[in-house]
Amino acid sequence: MDTRTGLPVVGMVGGGQLARMTHQAAISLGQSLRVLAANPDDGAALVAADVRLGDHTDLEALRAFAKGCDVVTFDHEHVPGEHIRALAAEGVTVHPSADALRYAQNKRAMRERLDELGIPVPRWWPVTDRRDIVGDVVVKAVSGGYDGRGVWLPSNLDSVPLGAGTELIAEERVPLRRELAALVARSPFGQVAAYPVVETVQRDGICVEVLAPAPGLPEERAVAAQQLAIRIATELGVVGLLAVELFEVDDGRLVVNELAMRPHNSGHWTIEGARTSQFEQHLRAVLDYPMGDTSMVAPAVAMANVLGGQPGGPSIDERLHHLFAEDPGVKVHLYGKQVRPGRKIGHVTVLGEDMEQVRARAVRAVARLRDGR
Amino acid sequence: MDTRTGLPVVGMVGGGQLARMTHQAAISLGQSLRVLAANPDDGAALVAADVRLGDHTDLEALRAFAKGCDVVTFDHEHVPGEHIRALAAEGVTVHPSADALRYAQNKRAMRERLDELGIPVPRWWPVTDRRDIVGDVVVKAVSGGYDGRGVWLPSNLDSVPLGAGTELIAEERVPLRRELAALVARSPFGQVAAYPVVETVQRDGICVEVLAPAPGLPEERAVAAQQLAIRIATELGVVGLLAVELFEVDDGRLVVNELAMRPHNSGHWTIEGARTSQFEQHLRAVLDYPMGDTSMVAPAVAMANVLGGQPGGPSIDERLHHLFAEDPGVKVHLYGKQVRPGRKIGHVTVLGEDMEQVRARAVRAVARLRDGR
Repeated sequence: MDTRTGLPVVGMVGGGQLARMTHQAAISLGQSLRVLAANPDDGAALVAADVRLGDHTDLEALRAFAKGCDVVTFDHEHVPGEHIRALAAEGVTVHPSADALRYAQNKRAMRERLDELGIPVPRWWPVTDRRDIVGDVVVKAVSGGYDGRGVWLPSNLDSVPLGAGTELIAEERVPLRRELAALVARSPFGQVAAYPVVETVQRDGICVEVLAPAPGLPEERAVAAQQLAIRIATELGVVGLLAVELFEVDDGRLVVNELAMRPHNSGHWTIEGARTSQFEQHLRAVLDYPMGDTSMVAPAVAMANVLGGQPGGPSIDERLHHLFAEDPGVKVHLYGKQVRPGRKIGHVTVLGEDMEQVRARAVRAVARLRDGR
Repeated sequence: MDTRTGLPVVGMVGGGQLARMTHQAAISLGQSLRVLAANPDDGAALVAADVRLGDHTDLEALRAFAKGCDVVTFDHEHVPGEHIRALAAEGVTVHPSADALRYAQNKRAMRERLDELGIPVPRWWPVTDRRDIVGDVVVKAVSGGYDGRGVWLPSNLDSVPLGAGTELIAEERVPLRRELAALVARSPFGQVAAYPVVETVQRDGICVEVLAPAPGLPEERAVAAQQLAIRIATELGVVGLLAVELFEVDDGRLVVNELAMRPHNSGHWTIEGARTSQFEQHLRAVLDYPMGDTSMVAPAVAMANVLGGQPGGPSIDERLHHLFAEDPGVKVHLYGKQVRPGRKIGHVTVLGEDMEQVRARAVRAVARLRDGR
């Protein structure tokens, strides 16, 4: 507890944009997020008052960081499970637990567990040899990948790092209608709150747009996706947010793609678009506060990621001026990152009545910020 | 400019809740607000990354603070005008300017100016002597008052500090229907954006509730209030936010009560209730970005201030648990302040379809936080 305010201290390991936006939510709850950042110019380190620098794989750094925190949580999946277990054994409250987080850290463990639970995932098998890569498959590193890294599509299966110490699986490609995401939050008490199911639009393995609610998704399929996410959160003992990335298969079935146990790109729309943002909800969950209202503020919400464009052209500040002049209603979130081509440097959100319109505005906004025109 | 991000640096003098909430808005715009706080445990100092400690009446402290800021602005009216002029003369961009801010700092200067402009204010006169306090009047200190301080109502006119060096005015009490507030933002370019006019409910000279939009206000009177605020902002050369506190008189006329040139309590509802919060709007205005959309997100929004209750009872954290259990849709903002009876320690906002319902929920929420039951 912070003795100055009488309110809890939440420590978040990782100083990226998720911690940055969680800090914004923490401020409303009377808190100041404590952040363990790798670098002083990490997105959250630029804006939070209580920043500790340290390596998230260093148990001593984690121990020092956790001291005085009411709960420790994460903005990424890269803290070794044995370190989380060590902290928990020493009395630190950590959410999600190592046992739960394992299924977000290890794609093989996740698939084995979901297979046991009878929850559909694409057919998969371990890869140790070139001969294991057969059929229409993608190959994935079992751990460490994100934003298209650690995933090899049919177009680049030649570059799979066989025999390089990277544990790999192959996964059959499913005949895909589109990708969806179901976001839920679960508290230690076991209360679960589910957000409306969204469509996530991917390009080159990176999420570029999120549409809330998923357009044209039949009500019973939306409920099925929420129930699936609630069941996974409960069975795996997740505390905090759980994002379930789903494939909506051509025949209408829902198949689990990946899990994340933290605020997730597919939930950024909730900052303006839902009564309770995913960042506030994650804090409420890990602190065992009752969950907040997940209902939408407008009938249609579109989120688009701002990717860094090619060097040159107007400065990011000039681009922002132009965007604001063009569309006074777009909400911009910039993460304080240096611009590099293809890097996620922010996102925009547009609320409205009509999905086609809000999506078009979001797409135009990110083009302005990316290309400066 | 922050060379790490390519985005501007805004310095805000004063470390209270207004700076705290402006910091939240700055983060979305890719910035980190620089705060000049009097104390390390001021609300904004607890949560901002770039906090300088110093006295806002010390020109040297202001000079050091301003260095490297693209623009300097304020969370209160207490910086001496001559210091603001000195900074401006040295090339610092300060918004609002000393010339504009004077009318928010000095109640007599404001009334003289509005009289010149033919803008209605209650009849007023200077007070130097007990004999000047006649009729049904309130007495106000010309400068330095807020939240009921520096104002003497008919019930306590005996305690007016005559001859104590405090410049005073008397103001005729007007037959009041209710109080309203019109909030606008103006950029250096001269663009003005007006928010929906709200009703402010006062108790003991402190604003306790804000209802947006003001219930039952005829459209033409709402437009008149907005036009009045736009005219004042333009005539006085305000850059940033201008809040115009208004009396709605029994005969329907609008009379100006006070002016503030900063984010204002009557605009806290905009954080969740408008497309662009007043805090983002203030940043956009002082940075000469185009103004954001001021339209409402829901038909009815109620804000209520959380005042500190009597000592004892459940902790603020326990009260928060109870409130969240009772009403999952209420949005809470706590300012990181020590609880003292009657002190503004936060606010809540409720959005919905029906004003009576959202107001009742907001009132119940602040009672829970104040009284713990």
